[in-house]
Amino acid sequence: MFVTFEGIEGTGKTTQIARLRDHLESKGREVFLTREPGGSRVGQELRQMLLHVDNSDLTAITELFLYLADRAQHVAQIIKPQLEAGRVVLCDRFADSTIVYQGFGRGLDIDMLKKLNEVAVNGVWPDLTIVLDLDPELGLDRATRRNMEDDKTLAEGRFEAEHLSFHRRIREGYLTWAALNRDRIKVADASSAPEEVFGRIRALIDTHQPGLV
Amino acid sequence: MFVTFEGIEGTGKTTQIARLRDHLESKGREVFLTREPGGSRVGQELRQMLLHVDNSDLTAITELFLYLADRAQHVAQIIKPQLEAGRVVLCDRFADSTIVYQGFGRGLDIDMLKKLNEVAVNGVWPDLTIVLDLDPELGLDRATRRNMEDDKTLAEGRFEAEHLSFHRRIREGYLTWAALNRDRIKVADASSAPEEVFGRIRALIDTHQPGLV
Repeated sequence: MFVTFEGIEGTGKTTQIARLRDHLESKGREVFLTREPGGSRVGQELRQMLLHVDNSDLTAITELFLYLADRAQHVAQIIKPQLEAGRVVLCDRFADSTIVYQGFGRGLDIDMLKKLNEVAVNGVWPDLTIVLDLDPELGLDRATRRNMEDDKTLAEGRFEAEHLSFHRRIREGYLTWAALNRDRIKVADASSAPEEVFGRIRALIDTHQPGLV
Repeated sequence: MFVTFEGIEGTGKTTQIARLRDHLESKGREVFLTREPGGSRVGQELRQMLLHVDNSDLTAITELFLYLADRAQHVAQIIKPQLEAGRVVLCDRFADSTIVYQGFGRGLDIDMLKKLNEVAVNGVWPDLTIVLDLDPELGLDRATRRNMEDDKTLAEGRFEAEHLSFHRRIREGYLTWAALNRDRIKVADASSAPEEVFGRIRALIDTHQPGLV
């Protein structure tokens, strides 16, 4: 089973994915946890390139092709072999991030993005995608505090430096895109305590594949 | 005017482009010389990634998207502004390399590659493309000797390490692609002395734009 997590910065994706991994492992499942960008060896170099604040001169199209390169390598080298080995793969961001950030966010044509995603994922689509939904003001506040604690001001600040209006477009983009793909993409309210959000995630997975969690 | 140069390794592209630049400058033209991959700042990082022998695990699709990212940034940041400033732009490899290496060479779908090139070049097509044509055995021999002199064994050996049959496919791919695009792409025999090859290049440019060279 291949589950991806989506949402704006600061929704708690990382925390929830780690929690889900622990939970699944406690039930005897083999779990592989990964993320985009940066899930493969070459992907880690691309992640640095994409998220570094110095690269604010990347055009929207350049950025798009770098994410797609990262995804193509990630799917072929990591995700597909892990799924074939029978593991549950949990991925922090995947193809829907491209639709939402580059399409709803940067204004690139969504039909074109869908076709490019098809080339990059090469048939390996998530069984289930969970969007953690949160007011961007709350999300950015959390992300900023986390970055100050981790001293990540250089390496991962490029998207967080965007204006609040950008993050509002992203949130709305996720909700629209989820509504257009309601069979695969489910939305979970991420505004409450982590324990409660995790309960929602478990319920969504249980509905999709009874008995897994 | 935007002129691109194509061909397998060792055909003398670099030498001929430098000579053409000197010649055009001696006639009072302003010339900008560039190359792919690696024409922009971020492109130089991508060039390292693409040509490094350690990255032989890149999938054909990953490689494709990295070249497209390099091209999109190169066109937007370098080529378009230089053309708008009235310069003659000479580029060592461009969009046709993607068609020939990834399509004829690696077997990716050529219609898909044409569409992806459209996205990357964003309307900025060469006025003229010159393919330097040479038997791959001669070309590889020249390229190998050059690399040994320059001690470039690590950084730029990835394509040169392919089997001779790959380079034969590439050469045939160039000839086929030129025949399919005869208005824009011209083939020059590169097997004779550099002076003679340069004469052929001048003649092709003169036919295309009388009085420039």
